[in-house]
Amino acid sequence: MIVEEKTVKSEKVYEGKIINLRVDTVELPHKKYSKREIVEHPGAAGVIPITPDGDIVLVKQFRKPAEEILLEIPAGLIEYGEEPDQCATRELKEETGYTTNKLRRLFEYYSTPGFSDEKIHIYLAEEVMEGVARPDENEYIEIVKMPINEALKKIKAGDIKDAKTIVAILAYSNFCSQNL
Amino acid sequence: MIVEEKTVKSEKVYEGKIINLRVDTVELPHKKYSKREIVEHPGAAGVIPITPDGDIVLVKQFRKPAEEILLEIPAGLIEYGEEPDQCATRELKEETGYTTNKLRRLFEYYSTPGFSDEKIHIYLAEEVMEGVARPDENEYIEIVKMPINEALKKIKAGDIKDAKTIVAILAYSNFCSQNL
Repeated sequence: MIVEEKTVKSEKVYEGKIINLRVDTVELPHKKYSKREIVEHPGAAGVIPITPDGDIVLVKQFRKPAEEILLEIPAGLIEYGEEPDQCATRELKEETGYTTNKLRRLFEYYSTPGFSDEKIHIYLAEEVMEGVARPDENEYIEIVKMPINEALKKIKAGDIKDAKTIVAILAYSNFCSQNL
Repeated sequence: MIVEEKTVKSEKVYEGKIINLRVDTVELPHKKYSKREIVEHPGAAGVIPITPDGDIVLVKQFRKPAEEILLEIPAGLIEYGEEPDQCATRELKEETGYTTNKLRRLFEYYSTPGFSDEKIHIYLAEEVMEGVARPDENEYIEIVKMPINEALKKIKAGDIKDAKTIVAILAYSNFCSQNL
């Protein structure tokens, strides 16, 4: 039996720059109650940039929560009033300098629905054209290009460790590389 | 240029049942400083259960942060003192009743390294055997079995919306279903 949990109380614990945290009290069957810790997030868009040669364009950056340098697809937070596809195009250009006329929505998903409402929208950008990157001030990134097969090997070897990047590469390999 | 961010101050904002929240102040080049909001998480293990017929075993449950019923692989939090593979075996048995003698580690990843340290360890469980589920008290779930091809279609159609489940199904399809 699946139970939809009705909120009986909601308490805001933190309001921050990117995330908020609230604790909801929910009602369960037999008059039981439980707490749910929920990180509110504005949502993000990520893009799989594929060059005319079939390489994928990735970015390398230090991620404080992981305390590691990670290899990721270009991605970023959806800004106020922005549509996910605009966000994908903007982040691609800002982080890598690449642009595309062939942007296609693949799907969206919850990054970690056990404790957050964050949704990530994944786009495919084909035949991307090189340009000049303009990362945000205080954003320090490096651009890395590689064939999809090398990216797949890096997932298997554990060298690509970011969920959205694993989703993107595996989805491209499954659904797109031999015609969707 | 990639910059590793040194913590100059760390403030605990919330200590909860599953997650904690802290705000770190980090030092950037040119004597600049920035805040990083970090959700601390104990980590989780997820398992891809494949029956002798080649079906995948999934669970359906209501997720409060998403306010939706989601279709997911069996997974759960790593408990104190537990190894990730023990967690995978335990959650498989508790949530679905299925057991396996063929558990294999695939890889691990950060679910959302922009704001959390949560790591998810993904395991493949082959030739799973049916048994009696014993979900936690207050855990309301339904078991759903389907062929991998149907699960892939559900990802494309947006009907599977949980990141770890998308990762698991795509990884199995890419790496495992025609011999890893």
